[in-house]
Order: sequence, then structure tokens, then C-alpha cells
Amino acid sequence: MGAMQNENLSKTLIFVKSSKIMKVGILGGGQLGRMLLQAAANFDVTTYVLENDAQCPAAHLCHHFTLGNIQDYDAVYNFGKNLDALTIEIEAVNVEALAQLEKEGVRVYPTPSAIRTIKNKVLQKQFYKDNEIPTAPFFITQHASEVSAHIDFLPAVHKMGEGGYDGKGVQIINNEKELELAFNVPSVLEKKVKIASEIALIVGMNASGETIIYPPAEMIFDTVYNLLDYQLSPAKLEEKQLWKAQAIARKVVKGLNSPGLFAIELFIDGQGEIWINETAPRVHNSGHHTIEANYSSQYDMLLRILLDYPMGNTDAILPSAIVNIVGSEGHTGAVYYEGLEEVLKMDNVFVHIYGKKQTKPGRKMGHVTIISKDYQDLTHKANKIKHTLKAITK
Amino acid sequence: MGAMQNENLSKTLIFVKSSKIMKVGILGGGQLGRMLLQAAANFDVTTYVLENDAQCPAAHLCHHFTLGNIQDYDAVYNFGKNLDALTIEIEAVNVEALAQLEKEGVRVYPTPSAIRTIKNKVLQKQFYKDNEIPTAPFFITQHASEVSAHIDFLPAVHKMGEGGYDGKGVQIINNEKELELAFNVPSVLEKKVKIASEIALIVGMNASGETIIYPPAEMIFDTVYNLLDYQLSPAKLEEKQLWKAQAIARKVVKGLNSPGLFAIELFIDGQGEIWINETAPRVHNSGHHTIEANYSSQYDMLLRILLDYPMGNTDAILPSAIVNIVGSEGHTGAVYYEGLEEVLKMDNVFVHIYGKKQTKPGRKMGHVTIISKDYQDLTHKANKIKHTLKAITK
Repeated sequence: MGAMQNENLSKTLIFVKSSKIMKVGILGGGQLGRMLLQAAANFDVTTYVLENDAQCPAAHLCHHFTLGNIQDYDAVYNFGKNLDALTIEIEAVNVEALAQLEKEGVRVYPTPSAIRTIKNKVLQKQFYKDNEIPTAPFFITQHASEVSAHIDFLPAVHKMGEGGYDGKGVQIINNEKELELAFNVPSVLEKKVKIASEIALIVGMNASGETIIYPPAEMIFDTVYNLLDYQLSPAKLEEKQLWKAQAIARKVVKGLNSPGLFAIELFIDGQGEIWINETAPRVHNSGHHTIEANYSSQYDMLLRILLDYPMGNTDAILPSAIVNIVGSEGHTGAVYYEGLEEVLKMDNVFVHIYGKKQTKPGRKMGHVTIISKDYQDLTHKANKIKHTLKAITK
Repeated sequence: MGAMQNENLSKTLIFVKSSKIMKVGILGGGQLGRMLLQAAANFDVTTYVLENDAQCPAAHLCHHFTLGNIQDYDAVYNFGKNLDALTIEIEAVNVEALAQLEKEGVRVYPTPSAIRTIKNKVLQKQFYKDNEIPTAPFFITQHASEVSAHIDFLPAVHKMGEGGYDGKGVQIINNEKELELAFNVPSVLEKKVKIASEIALIVGMNASGETIIYPPAEMIFDTVYNLLDYQLSPAKLEEKQLWKAQAIARKVVKGLNSPGLFAIELFIDGQGEIWINETAPRVHNSGHHTIEANYSSQYDMLLRILLDYPMGNTDAILPSAIVNIVGSEGHTGAVYYEGLEEVLKMDNVFVHIYGKKQTKPGRKMGHVTIISKDYQDLTHKANKIKHTLKAITK
């Protein structure tokens, strides 16, 4: 009798849940959260953001903003406990709180287990090895002293397991003389391999295990103009390379066994061999162009996965390029966008400013997407924008 | 000496103004405001919304929401007095407060004068006549009794000068027997003319008087399937018709002499003659497709005008169709979107749900944009979506 009542009750709850408006939370309030919320306004969904900075790019675009530390157990747990679904826009979050929320029935996509694997470079690298995903040869070191056992392996890249980001926590060790640069915490010592090109694929999986994959994007390092990088998509790969890249991307998401959206960064060497560099368990800078250039953007796709809607169409409408607007060297303070009007005049160009008040060297302040059926037009405009638009102080 | 100081001071103020973050306000918080704010998140701008309903579609997407009546002088004046620029998403606003704000230096686009002309159908019609813009023959009536002086003019459409919207305030008077239906307030009595097709053009003007114009969109009334309307763009017009339509649209915005964005609804008769039906001084339902189908959307364009940035590119990336999701007959209450998942599965389709909690017959709940180089694909999918997606109660 009691059991029957419970069964009826749980059916009722399921029914109510399927017809009510979903509550979706985001840990982190940066530009990725901002663009996710722009896309969320196409759905009937109530949005929540947790972030330590009330002036962050995403704060004003959600229904409910909570000021708090995404690395703090209580802050994350209390934020998530009344939500239907929860995602992240940065890996540095409290995974234990997410695991508890998952246990209590909140959809946490990517899963806490996947975040745990990826946010630690040692575990991430071990995951590739265990799943036979091609990656550069490596050793795991617990202490700096262990690196000296691998002199023959140098030159190598030493990567901190946890705590590294934006170039911090990564150190090239070329030879024995540079051993003193090694990190004295659990780290990956990875063979330094010559890279011919660098590509990225956005891959997604829903709760039923269905996967989608976007056309690859290629990072372009322009040696003629001596410019910073920009990105082209779809990358022009040989068919076999494309297949291999897609197979790797699918293997990662299947191996992580987690719904969500993932960016897979791959290296290609001079012989055309492909291996994985790293994975991000979230929407990613390398997928910004999908807002205008693909039928379903990476943001739209992640929302579909979170809301358990059908997956979207990853096809490109037109080829595209992304130019990142990063804070210029030597400029720290209130931002001014030099050359913005000139770029806004371009015919097939989409400017995204993230609304950050302060610029500093290297800070991601915005991006510009160019779409065109003509790859020459893409590279020409990307170069022009790189030369024109600057985030500086005045 | 004092004068010199003032001059220096005013130069300093101008400099500060040009480098600070602009404050842009919107009167009204419906779906047009919602989509304008989605686009505003691509710019470095602080956003404000005034609306009487804290649950309105745009409330959660602005930086600062103010609960208040957009028809109330004090509410509008106090809302606008600290803003740099102000626009509307509905005509029924307090124009006197806007006029005062304009006088005090706030950019009010469209101008209060343009809103005043357009929101009153008598003044709007007189404006067309004064500016030699082709429009259906009409009389202006102050009282219901005056209609009887125009028996020979029937059948005609009687339109209230002020207060009409969504079909209210519009009455067809076919013959003498129906004279009792006439409005007893200042109204337009307009000749009922046979319409072959109905098109709309979005036109914009910036503060320097530069104009842009989007490709025309055509309303399709499908008699085979007996369906409600949907919209195709670019409309397939003869070149001469296109020129005339564009000339009319430009004449309206030049005649109103107002920066801003305007939707011009035009009728075409069996002889190919074109005349104006009405103007909306704002972003408009007939321009929703520009979000995905054009380089600069109507929302992006209005923001450029408000921020005094260069105008955008109105070209279509691909042809497109819009299907409106309106509340089904016989359904009033908490909304449920029947068929949503089926539509989300379609390859080249973009769903926009406005987030309104309650549906009622005819209420605009969302829209779907289809893009395709193939017009047959557009009409086929538009019909399918019309049959599939319904805003109902469960």
C-alpha cells in the first residue's frame, strides 16, 4: 500500500517536472556564461549564475544572480540544490559539491566525474592513455626531483596537475641545465613534439548517449604578417585526418561518459599524425564562431543537452574566422576599444564585446567573427581586424 | 575668464562622455525588448528597462529594471533622465516625458515628434498625405455621425486615431446599414481596397541622416492549406516594385526626420500599385528573421543607431521565413509548447520562445525562423511548423 502510494507520487512528480519551466544554473559568470545566457533567452528557461564578482560579464543576463565562490563547497551546494540542471563555464569549481548535487538528482552536465578527470592534467593524461587516445608521450612526476630521471626524454613540457591556467603552470624544460624549472607538485612531463598545425573540435553528448560533432576549426599563426593567431573553420583537412580527429573527439566524450559539451584540442605533426593536446569540458573560445556560422551554436547545443531537447544541427552555414580581442601589452585600466568603428563598418563581421570594465595585457575582452564563402576574404579581414581593433586604455 | 573656464569644462565633459559606457533605456519589456537586449550583450553598454510587469520577457536581461508605467509622465521622465539614449518597443508611451528628455539632451530615437505622428492614426495618415506618400484614399472623422456623409465611399475601414491595437479599434463598414459600427472618436475612414499582397520593409536612419533599408519581406496567406500567415524574405518583387517600395520607405523616414528603426507595411494591388498601410517606429515582428538571416539584425542595427556607431549591413545571408507562435484558440493559462521537440529537430530552423508564463488566444508567444537558399524548403517547413508547434494549455 505504502509502496503503491510512493509509486503514484513519483509518477506525479515526474509529470510535474516535465511540464514546468526548467531552472538552469551556471558556475562562473565570464564571457562564456554571457553568451550561454544570450542563447538561453531563446528558450523558456529560468537562469541562475554563481560568481564572485557582481560586475562579471554574465551577471545582468540571468534571472537570479548569486554572489559566491564557485570553489567553495557550501556556495556551490546551496546554489545548486534547487536547480534542475547545472553546468560550468570554467573547470576550477568545487567538484565535491557537484557530486553531492548529482547524487540528489540535479542534472550536472558535464558530470562531476568528468570535470574531476579533466581539471587535473595528470588524471586527464592518464585518461587518454587508459582509453588509447593518441597523445604525446609523457611521464608523471610527483616531485621536481623526479624529472632528473628523464634527462633523455628532454626537451619536454612540464605541466602542473592542478592550478595552472592561461600559460601559468606550464614550463618548457629543454635540457639538464633547466631542471631547476621543474614543478615540485604532481605534474605531467610531456615530450615536446614539433607541431605542424593545431585544430579544435567541439563535441557534445546528451543523456541518451547520442553525440554530435562540429566541423573542425584551425588555429592560424600568420608568419608573413607576424601576427597573433586567429582561427578558421571548417579547417581544410584531408579526409583521413578529419575522420581521425572526429574519432578521437568521440572517443573522449564516450570515455568520459558524460553528457555535456566538450572542446577537444588536437595537434597535427609534419607527418600528418594527429594526437590530443587537451580537453575542456564546456563551451570554448574555439567555438565562438558557431553563434553566427553554424545552424546550432555551441551555446544553443549545450542548452539543448541541459534541457534534454533534441540535439541541434552542427553544419556550417558559411565558413568563418574568429579574431580574439585581447588586452594590449602595456595597457592596464579602464578599457577603450580603438578601431571599433572601423571594424563595425565591415560587411560580414560580427563584433562581440564582453563588457569587462578593466583591460590588462592578454585579457580576453571580446571577439570578432567573420563569415564568408571565400577563405581569402576571411584571412584578409582577420588580418585587417587584428591590425585595427585594440583593447587599450586611453 | 569665467567663460574660458566654462569652455574648457564643457570640452572635458564631452571627452568623458565619448569614452564612458553608454546607458541605453527601453520603454517596454516585451519580446522586442528581449531580443534587443540579447543583441545589446554584444556591445559594451549598460541597459535599462521600464515596464509595469516584473515578469515581462525582457526584465531579466537588462542591467537595471524599473517597475513603472510607460504611459505615465513621471515614470518615463524619472527613468530616462540619467540615460544617454532611449528607445521604445511599443508606441503607447508618454510622449510628453520623452519630449522633455529630448530637450534635456537625452538621445530619444525615434524622436518624440515621430512617435506622436505615428501613434495617432489620424496624424499618421495626414503625414502620408502631406508628404505625398501613396496611401489608400481616406476621410478624417471626428464623430461617428460624420461617417454618414461618406456613404458613396463605402465599403471602408474605420480606424480609431488612438487606442487601437491588435485588431481592436479597427472596424469594417461595408454599407449604410453598418454605420452604427462607426467610432465616435477622431478616426480615419479609409477606402477598403483589394490587396494582392502585403510586404514590409525595415528602414533605419542614424543621427547624421544616413539611411539603411532591409530587403522586403512578404506576408504569405496560404489558401491551399488554409493556414494562418507566415512570412518570406527577401520577397520576390519586380524590380520596379522594389524600387517603389524602397522609395516609399525612405520617404517615410526622411519625412519623419527621426533617427531610429522603422517598419513600413505596404500593400500591393492587382495592378502592381504599391501604397503604404502603416508604419511602426521601432523593431518589428516582420524583422525577426534578420537575427539569423541578415548580417546586421534589426536589433543590432537599432543599437548601432542609439550608440552612434556605423550602420550595419542589411544584406540577407540566406532567404528566410518566419512562423509566429501565437496562443491557440480555446487555450488560456500556463503555456505548454506542443510539438516543440519535433521543430527543434529540424535542420535549418531557429526557435525563439519569449518566456511568457501565460498563453491566451492570439498572444504572441514566440517565433520560428527558417533559413534556406531554397524557397520551396522555406514554404514546406513553414507549413510543417504551423501544423506542428502550438502554444496551448495542458
